[in-house]
Amino acid sequence: MSLVTADAVRAAAARIEGLVVRTPLTAGPVENPPFLLKPETLQPTGAFKLRGASNAVAMLDTEQRRAGVVTHSAGNHGLALACAAQAQGLACTVVVPQGAPRVKVDRIRARGARVITVPYEERLSTAQELERTEHLTIIPPYDDPTIIAGQGTVGLEILEQSPEVTTIVVPVGGGGLASGIATAAWTMSSRKVRVVGVEPELAAEAAESLRVGELVTWSAERTQGTMADGVRAGLSELTFAHLRARLDRIVTVTEDEIAHAVAALAHQARLVTEPSGAVAAAALLAGKVTTESGDPGATVAVISGGNVDPEVFVDLIAPG
Amino acid sequence: MSLVTADAVRAAAARIEGLVVRTPLTAGPVENPPFLLKPETLQPTGAFKLRGASNAVAMLDTEQRRAGVVTHSAGNHGLALACAAQAQGLACTVVVPQGAPRVKVDRIRARGARVITVPYEERLSTAQELERTEHLTIIPPYDDPTIIAGQGTVGLEILEQSPEVTTIVVPVGGGGLASGIATAAWTMSSRKVRVVGVEPELAAEAAESLRVGELVTWSAERTQGTMADGVRAGLSELTFAHLRARLDRIVTVTEDEIAHAVAALAHQARLVTEPSGAVAAAALLAGKVTTESGDPGATVAVISGGNVDPEVFVDLIAPG
Repeated sequence: MSLVTADAVRAAAARIEGLVVRTPLTAGPVENPPFLLKPETLQPTGAFKLRGASNAVAMLDTEQRRAGVVTHSAGNHGLALACAAQAQGLACTVVVPQGAPRVKVDRIRARGARVITVPYEERLSTAQELERTEHLTIIPPYDDPTIIAGQGTVGLEILEQSPEVTTIVVPVGGGGLASGIATAAWTMSSRKVRVVGVEPELAAEAAESLRVGELVTWSAERTQGTMADGVRAGLSELTFAHLRARLDRIVTVTEDEIAHAVAALAHQARLVTEPSGAVAAAALLAGKVTTESGDPGATVAVISGGNVDPEVFVDLIAPG
Repeated sequence: MSLVTADAVRAAAARIEGLVVRTPLTAGPVENPPFLLKPETLQPTGAFKLRGASNAVAMLDTEQRRAGVVTHSAGNHGLALACAAQAQGLACTVVVPQGAPRVKVDRIRARGARVITVPYEERLSTAQELERTEHLTIIPPYDDPTIIAGQGTVGLEILEQSPEVTTIVVPVGGGGLASGIATAAWTMSSRKVRVVGVEPELAAEAAESLRVGELVTWSAERTQGTMADGVRAGLSELTFAHLRARLDRIVTVTEDEIAHAVAALAHQARLVTEPSGAVAAAALLAGKVTTESGDPGATVAVISGGNVDPEVFVDLIAPG
């Protein structure tokens, strides 16, 4: 299986410049050991997903652009694709499952997308039917080289912004973000920069896959227990191949550690994060990733998203 | 009275590069009319004050550097000065009033500063005594050209980051930030960029001063009513002169409007802000500043700080 190249990540960076925010490196919560944050919560859609979606949309040919794009995700990727399509003047359709949170559907509609609601199990088939009948191009959330290359621009920016970085810690769900960042760090730099993945203990499919050496998937029922809903998804063959070749290692965090990180990021780093977005910081705060002591620029935690239900967020950060 | 020049702001920008975060422009809360945010909450100390303090410290001569600096503020400026001094290898003393919040004092100490606690009314005299006896240099929070020039780098960055900007909306307390940004916008650009100040109705000294044409100060008792504690201070003669010459106009916001803005910034823009830091967004959300419709890059609200008591913050953002 051919893997995404550093050149593809560099090309994606040039392609999406001006379409996404170049997020700064900011100070981590004031606890030892010190580390920096890459807050992708500052993207206009509140998550890194806008990078991959913007790159995928920008790579379409004229005919594909005329017909438009489709995806089946009521989450951060659906919103990102709607935003990317709007910014680049394409029609976008998002297939969402019945019962998807109203606030998320409203945000997708506000970006000009057509929303089609279907039973959960008909999401993929509906998208495929639209591909056949309306010639829409399906843009998947992570199982796609153009998406991986787009997400990899997070890593490219970190390498440019911190010449001292030696460790990048990154959430792993479907694996697109970790694959892209590991590609940027692995093949691009003359420096040795290791990339460490983080999963919730309750959705540790990537950790198990890497341990046993083949792609393992857990049932949706099995991963329901983690509050980090954005990283419940498992790897694809494509992202598994990237992580096996390029990730340094992967660690897991508990629900308590995730909750503590959300609160610490709010009160000490002034960032609103969703539980999935906080798992990398959670691993560092829990001492599960060893860092080079003394140099606060040596370690960067990617804060991947901040689209959290207001009630959930308030519960997580309310003082003792 | 001689005013700060555009050259002084440009020189400050060069001087503090690498010492402060170049904050990005990010999307405002999704409400009409659209506007961008300049989130200074991302500075390592959680507020823009690090810019002025870093510039003032960097301009000291060898003798002054050897003796160190002192200020009397347990707020964002005290923390900023401690951080700036630590980063540049100077000793720092912060005189804080008895009863200052423990968490703020701890954060100042964590930056390596000496903390001296005195009764509220002895703060200034204690700093002055240290100036005499230990030859410390007093770095005031806003009544100083080097501080104004440093804060002005916020405006310089906005002009560089958004070629479309026509209006910058900025909180006004002591007036250092607004003076600096108005200087950057007034004298630097071939474009016409207007700067609009915002104060709480309950601490509207600058608005009254500009209306009557002379510096008016309100008693501390009179401004206690606003939750925006960071902008309770009144102008100095120096900042009044800047605002009179260079500010387009000033508007006021109610406590309800401030509270609404803190919640909107958390839930829709994923930023933790203190009430003072949210007043510019509050004015825009309340329709008190007219914006060029259609171009979301035309208006920028400066989000000046995010050091808010966790309990206060949770109360402000808890859903209805």
